[in-house]
Amino acid sequence: MRQFVVSGHDAPTTADFSLDDLAGGAGRLDVLCRCVNSAFFLSHDLRENVRVWLVLADEFAVRFEGGELRRLNPDERSTAALIRNALDSREEAIGHMEVESSPGVFLSRRGFEPVLEKVAEESTVVALHEDGDPVGEIDPPEEPAFVLSDHRDFADDETGLLEGVADTRVRLGPERLHADHAITIAHNWLDTAGYTQY
Amino acid sequence: MRQFVVSGHDAPTTADFSLDDLAGGAGRLDVLCRCVNSAFFLSHDLRENVRVWLVLADEFAVRFEGGELRRLNPDERSTAALIRNALDSREEAIGHMEVESSPGVFLSRRGFEPVLEKVAEESTVVALHEDGDPVGEIDPPEEPAFVLSDHRDFADDETGLLEGVADTRVRLGPERLHADHAITIAHNWLDTAGYTQY
Repeated sequence: MRQFVVSGHDAPTTADFSLDDLAGGAGRLDVLCRCVNSAFFLSHDLRENVRVWLVLADEFAVRFEGGELRRLNPDERSTAALIRNALDSREEAIGHMEVESSPGVFLSRRGFEPVLEKVAEESTVVALHEDGDPVGEIDPPEEPAFVLSDHRDFADDETGLLEGVADTRVRLGPERLHADHAITIAHNWLDTAGYTQY
Repeated sequence: MRQFVVSGHDAPTTADFSLDDLAGGAGRLDVLCRCVNSAFFLSHDLRENVRVWLVLADEFAVRFEGGELRRLNPDERSTAALIRNALDSREEAIGHMEVESSPGVFLSRRGFEPVLEKVAEESTVVALHEDGDPVGEIDPPEEPAFVLSDHRDFADDETGLLEGVADTRVRLGPERLHADHAITIAHNWLDTAGYTQY
């Protein structure tokens, strides 16, 4: 299982946003949608052995489960519609109990810290860092969880939490990348290392 | 200079498409928009030394010029709006003469073959192929032009044209990828090889 956690700092926490303004009024939800795309899509195929956690403004988490996903399309707008559907169920998400809003899409009332704790229990948490080991020189962990930030840098408290649970720090390349591009490179690292199951 | 050519088989050739239906009525323009995103964006930066050619239904070409681009944003919708603006100038694009519809965005009446001929004059044409050399094992060319297809495979005549001009065949990884993901991996290959200028 490959997991990706993306912190969406300005992401909406209610369903009353317009699909016509994802990069504006919807708090850069376009970034998170592209992360979902990069995490799941292969040419004419979907990576089933992938889980994505979108953390919305440290308040809600949307979990996308590769093996159960239906109705996921590559474009930003349709992915945003799935997230909006999930937020439509926000009153049913009580505590950490999840609501499945569409097949393979689950909403829970969880911020960055509880999501991070959960993935740290199950996975090797990988932090991306410019001082990390270049991925070309090391073997990837078998059950990695990559933790990324949207268009903003991690907040100081997020950095502290991540440093507390990170098992390894890696560098994907010489340039600082958008989160969705980083996910693509991370997959390629795992694919090339022979982790062919997806 | 890094060049990327993307053939959009179903892409619109007139400006009368809706930005609300990029993945449907606009002939999967979402794919081409994500290719533009992958080609140009770094975290808080733009790769200036990049040129992208979107071929629209083998009839028009939209050239994005990294060093001159303004008003490019990462989301699909705003990039589609730039393409729609370009198509709004289609009557002014006569022969191969280009029209600049917004800073760094140029429309010309060119199909796949003349675009390919043009990039082949200037660059080392790189075809992506599952039997190509794995990128981890070879050095990239200095002035590469990667030629990609949208959600469809290349048509037979496109494959023939590409084979005619391709200088090298490479394989980006074990999985078949979406075109925009392939662009991200190609950049990472060049970045990692020390081609730091962008």
